[in-house]
Amino acid sequence: MLKPSPFAPAQFPELPVIAGVRTATASRGFYAARGLDRDDVFLFEFAPGTTTAGVFTMSTTASADVAWCREALLAGQGQARALVVNSGNSNAFTGPKGKEKNDATLAAIVASLGAPKTQCFLGATGVIGEPLPDPNYVGSIVPQLQSQLAAPDWLACAKAFMTTDTYPKGASHSASIGNTTAQFAGIAKGSGMIAPNMATMLAYVFTDIAATPAILDVALRQACNASFNAITVDSDTSTSDSLMVFATGQNASPEISAQDDPRFAELVQALTQVCLDLALQIVKDGEGATKFITIDVTGAESDASARMIAADIANSPLVKTALAANDANWGRVVMATGKSGQPVALDRLSIWFGDVAVAQGGARAQDYDEDAATAVVSQPDIHIRVDVGVGAGRATLYTCDLTHAYVDINGAYRT
Amino acid sequence: MLKPSPFAPAQFPELPVIAGVRTATASRGFYAARGLDRDDVFLFEFAPGTTTAGVFTMSTTASADVAWCREALLAGQGQARALVVNSGNSNAFTGPKGKEKNDATLAAIVASLGAPKTQCFLGATGVIGEPLPDPNYVGSIVPQLQSQLAAPDWLACAKAFMTTDTYPKGASHSASIGNTTAQFAGIAKGSGMIAPNMATMLAYVFTDIAATPAILDVALRQACNASFNAITVDSDTSTSDSLMVFATGQNASPEISAQDDPRFAELVQALTQVCLDLALQIVKDGEGATKFITIDVTGAESDASARMIAADIANSPLVKTALAANDANWGRVVMATGKSGQPVALDRLSIWFGDVAVAQGGARAQDYDEDAATAVVSQPDIHIRVDVGVGAGRATLYTCDLTHAYVDINGAYRT
Repeated sequence: MLKPSPFAPAQFPELPVIAGVRTATASRGFYAARGLDRDDVFLFEFAPGTTTAGVFTMSTTASADVAWCREALLAGQGQARALVVNSGNSNAFTGPKGKEKNDATLAAIVASLGAPKTQCFLGATGVIGEPLPDPNYVGSIVPQLQSQLAAPDWLACAKAFMTTDTYPKGASHSASIGNTTAQFAGIAKGSGMIAPNMATMLAYVFTDIAATPAILDVALRQACNASFNAITVDSDTSTSDSLMVFATGQNASPEISAQDDPRFAELVQALTQVCLDLALQIVKDGEGATKFITIDVTGAESDASARMIAADIANSPLVKTALAANDANWGRVVMATGKSGQPVALDRLSIWFGDVAVAQGGARAQDYDEDAATAVVSQPDIHIRVDVGVGAGRATLYTCDLTHAYVDINGAYRT
Repeated sequence: MLKPSPFAPAQFPELPVIAGVRTATASRGFYAARGLDRDDVFLFEFAPGTTTAGVFTMSTTASADVAWCREALLAGQGQARALVVNSGNSNAFTGPKGKEKNDATLAAIVASLGAPKTQCFLGATGVIGEPLPDPNYVGSIVPQLQSQLAAPDWLACAKAFMTTDTYPKGASHSASIGNTTAQFAGIAKGSGMIAPNMATMLAYVFTDIAATPAILDVALRQACNASFNAITVDSDTSTSDSLMVFATGQNASPEISAQDDPRFAELVQALTQVCLDLALQIVKDGEGATKFITIDVTGAESDASARMIAADIANSPLVKTALAANDANWGRVVMATGKSGQPVALDRLSIWFGDVAVAQGGARAQDYDEDAATAVVSQPDIHIRVDVGVGAGRATLYTCDLTHAYVDINGAYRT
């Protein structure tokens, strides 16, 4: 058993019922070989009329499940009736066998739910490159899952797709959108192989609003950019990253179908809030994490430039190991800023740890106070701001520290 | 004391006398505050007529010493009379105080050796952002160094600029260049904050050939690309990286002044051999390293593309932690290949650990043998080859694993 993250919440949050959503979980046996008795697969059923959108890993070695979701979103025109996700095996780099597993699973869903194949979505997370024992390994449990469908048991679902996660991750939001109250609920998993510029590990958000697939797609991309694309644990991008939203259209509000509808901005805001909540839970459960670190870069040539500088700081092993040891080694922040190659006004470069100015005007702050800086980095929640003195570009990224436990977890993952 | 790298050589190699080179080392006191009695500064004196060239960190927050070397190379037209390097403080991000230290040190060298200022070069390595106690801290010891100048004591010099290195690094080569035998000797330091696309930490190569500064510059860049630019320990690029070559012109061969001189290729080959020897010593002394890992990428769209894929594999914390634990987790090599975003023919992607094919044609090898793969990664010296099936591009990079000791060393560095 992994030691729980120090940021683990006392309990799983209360998540609302989303009308039009039913769920079931089961143990297929992915973890039985390791002596663990736990659920490892879930089924979501959506009412007819549910729309969907998704963003996926930018990896060129993406999993078969990711490939299918992309294909189904196009072929099914953004309609959704089912989602089946397993943990324990990512079905990535499994060659033709990966597609065979998907075909068998999809056939089972179509037979059990009577849903069109292109409205059925798949996800998988776990070891890369290991073929399943037989193509119908997941499909064979779909009838049982279908027979157990009931009102959403969010906690059971959030637990079923955990891998190295030390706590289940859920988030909700109730938003006024137009004249109605809309409910949002989301679940996510992820702890390692987490890097920006992708979707995330696996995260699914559900709402009772009505929106066209095109509108959902735009809203989801905006929400993702400020949440899952703003976190990194270890700079490694997964082959399975998937973020999807499902909108059942079961509340009273008419469908949102245009970006100039004032409800569109409200939708983006609500989605962003849920996605950011889930994304920060992933960072706080980063493998071996003992510190939650927020990196603000300001004064960059552009927002994109600020993001690249922030990413080089957030991914620097030297910055992360120093913070793990309560070492206010701000010189490594200078180093990481410099290695980005982005424009920097060296004689105006300034750095703050919390409220403590550690560097000002291209050198150590005149009233530099090592004790004050050490006090900041000794807290579990650390805020670092870097102003590079060039322009108005800014970005905020979130990461965690690099500890012995990360080395342990990732040396033992397959065993 | 750091535990020595398992790759530490039994003894420092024999290095030849280079006519026209004298050296001295001393303890200035950078380490005395930490209770260590050791040398931490060296002086090299070169005979009149010595030419030089250098490549330096691409960091935008480069140290004051790097800035001076760039300036002096231009202003002094590639002539060299002296080199003073200290460890314990990198003089990076020290603002105007960084330049004051350089000015005082240079004034002391000019006074002691009677050399023109622009023919005097500086280097520094250690903590970033900490100003020296006084501007003349290094300069004040130059007269003592000058009085001790003698035939090169390579081992003393190699020891004097170590930081987290666990062994001193030297390399030599005797090459037939034209009708004469030329001698090459080099020393280097570096263990962490090591990443490709730069020069290196600090490395200096000395030879008795005669070559114009322009020829040395071209030859050094070619040698660097195949050596120091092909290694990574932790993906972090230093603010102080410097690689310089000094050619005293004291052997019998006339000056090399053109690239179509057949001796130019011989010079590049000899320089590359010394630089690669030193670069691999740095990787093998990578902070906490227990494995030396060679990554060959073939079949890429271009050599540049192959290098980017190899860098993402070499810098992946998940690949490095798996290999530290003797885990043949080749799925993470697939992941790192994919995250590069470089063109990959997924259905032709193949991976070998040593001679063991672990992936072939976009899936696990048909005759995959976990025990055989585990045997390969349980060795201290691991060779990984990835063929991405697109074109003829290829690259070789060298790295080490990521262990508990890396976390320890970098949490304790400043204390």
